[in-house]
Amino acid sequence: MMPTARGRFITLEGAEGVGKSTHLPFISEWLRARGIEVVQTREPGGTPLAEGIRGLFLSCGGMPAESELLLLFAARASHLREVIEPALVRGAWVICDRFTDATYAYQGGGRGIDSAWIADLERRIQGHINPDRVLLLDAPVAIGRGRVAARRGAAVDRIEEEDDGFFERVRDVYLARARQPGYRLIDASGSVEAVQRLLVEALGDLIDPCRP
Amino acid sequence: MMPTARGRFITLEGAEGVGKSTHLPFISEWLRARGIEVVQTREPGGTPLAEGIRGLFLSCGGMPAESELLLLFAARASHLREVIEPALVRGAWVICDRFTDATYAYQGGGRGIDSAWIADLERRIQGHINPDRVLLLDAPVAIGRGRVAARRGAAVDRIEEEDDGFFERVRDVYLARARQPGYRLIDASGSVEAVQRLLVEALGDLIDPCRP
Ligand SMILES: Nc1ncnc2c1ncn2[C@@H]1O[C@H](COP(=O)(O)OP(=O)(O)O)[C@@H](O)[C@H]1O
Ligand SMILES: Nc1ncnc2c1ncn2[C@@H]1O[C@H](COP(=O)(O)OP(=O)(O)O)[C@@H](O)[C@H]1O
Ligand SMILES: [Mg+2]
Ligand SMILES: [Mg+2]
Repeated sequence: MMPTARGRFITLEGAEGVGKSTHLPFISEWLRARGIEVVQTREPGGTPLAEGIRGLFLSCGGMPAESELLLLFAARASHLREVIEPALVRGAWVICDRFTDATYAYQGGGRGIDSAWIADLERRIQGHINPDRVLLLDAPVAIGRGRVAARRGAAVDRIEEEDDGFFERVRDVYLARARQPGYRLIDASGSVEAVQRLLVEALGDLIDPCRP
Repeated sequence: MMPTARGRFITLEGAEGVGKSTHLPFISEWLRARGIEVVQTREPGGTPLAEGIRGLFLSCGGMPAESELLLLFAARASHLREVIEPALVRGAWVICDRFTDATYAYQGGGRGIDSAWIADLERRIQGHINPDRVLLLDAPVAIGRGRVAARRGAAVDRIEEEDDGFFERVRDVYLARARQPGYRLIDASGSVEAVQRLLVEALGDLIDPCRP
């Protein structure tokens, strides 16, 4: 028997309101229509422990930045071992709403944690598992915030309450990281349909490696 | 005005059933009787976030050792900043049921995590805050386990379910660490009264620095 090819690991990144949760099911369906088994998941989350951590993370006000960082990697270790790695090994593709780039952007850029420490935890927790493709949805901070406000009125979580300076720093780190190989910068300021056309373009070469 | 002298930080350590929770209130009362303001606390725990983490820690089965480690330091960062450090600064003494020695013993010795990583997190999260006195309650593993079994019958948590080999490794690390300055090794195999006499002896010099 041929060994099963390892699946691909795709992450959707970007600040609040850029459309990650909107486009996640679209990407999953687009891949499934091409015969691919897809596991759709999110961070922090994806396992009972990690969803418990997500609950604390989003609700416990005033926690130290260091606690945020360590909670995220505690959840990530569980998510990788129980969900992501087994899926990739059996050949499924994993599509994840946020991953370690968000930690660099929010805890590094937003909160000012030293990126060398984040890189150390990344290496210890992830080992060789890194996204094959990072889709960075980018839009001016005001656009994302406007969409979030329209989405929910008063019900915002602890992170969404941060000021514009915080989200500008988050965006800057994301944009700097997106210059690396494997990243695709997607203009998320257009309509849902326009963004989805860009997302399909940014995935084409994974499906058909002969495409440019 | 004279600046207030910084309080002392005392931790109670040792494996399951050695008597940490039994002796914590005794030590607090003994110090209060000497006019000292005492803050009695525990790890993981001591703040709403850290107690939430404790709940996940003790109940979520099968988590990776790395998640245990990061959850403990995430809780510790919150506990230090919100409870321990402010108490010490205002001159109160802090008596804590478990602290970082437990992380070396359980996650290092018990689970096999590299102690250099624990030391790195200790430095990053604690900075200059370390216990002034570590009271290590020590007894053969069978004695502690026998007491726990008598205490609760079937209701054991996730850690108490580990096998004897795990607790022997935990004890070995504790005993090795107790050779450092500031540590006191207490034979916890005797009666409650006998252990309390040893604890009072191990604290005397903190109250009256002229005692041997
Ligand atoms: N391209 C778009 N144009 C207009 N509204 C959008 C667009 N993409 C998403 N939205 C809306 O903006 C809000 C935030 O989108 P969401 O997918 O939840 O963002 P994220 O998950 O990145 O925070 C939702 O109400 C969503 O319907
Ligand atoms: N010296 C002792 N002799 C006999 N029983 C003890 C002694 N110290 C504690 N116990 C009992 O053993 C059980 C475990 O003690 P506990 O203080 O809960 O241990 P720990 O907090 O270290 O796990 C309790 O039921 C307690 O009453
Ligand atoms: Mg979302
Ligand atoms: Mg106890």
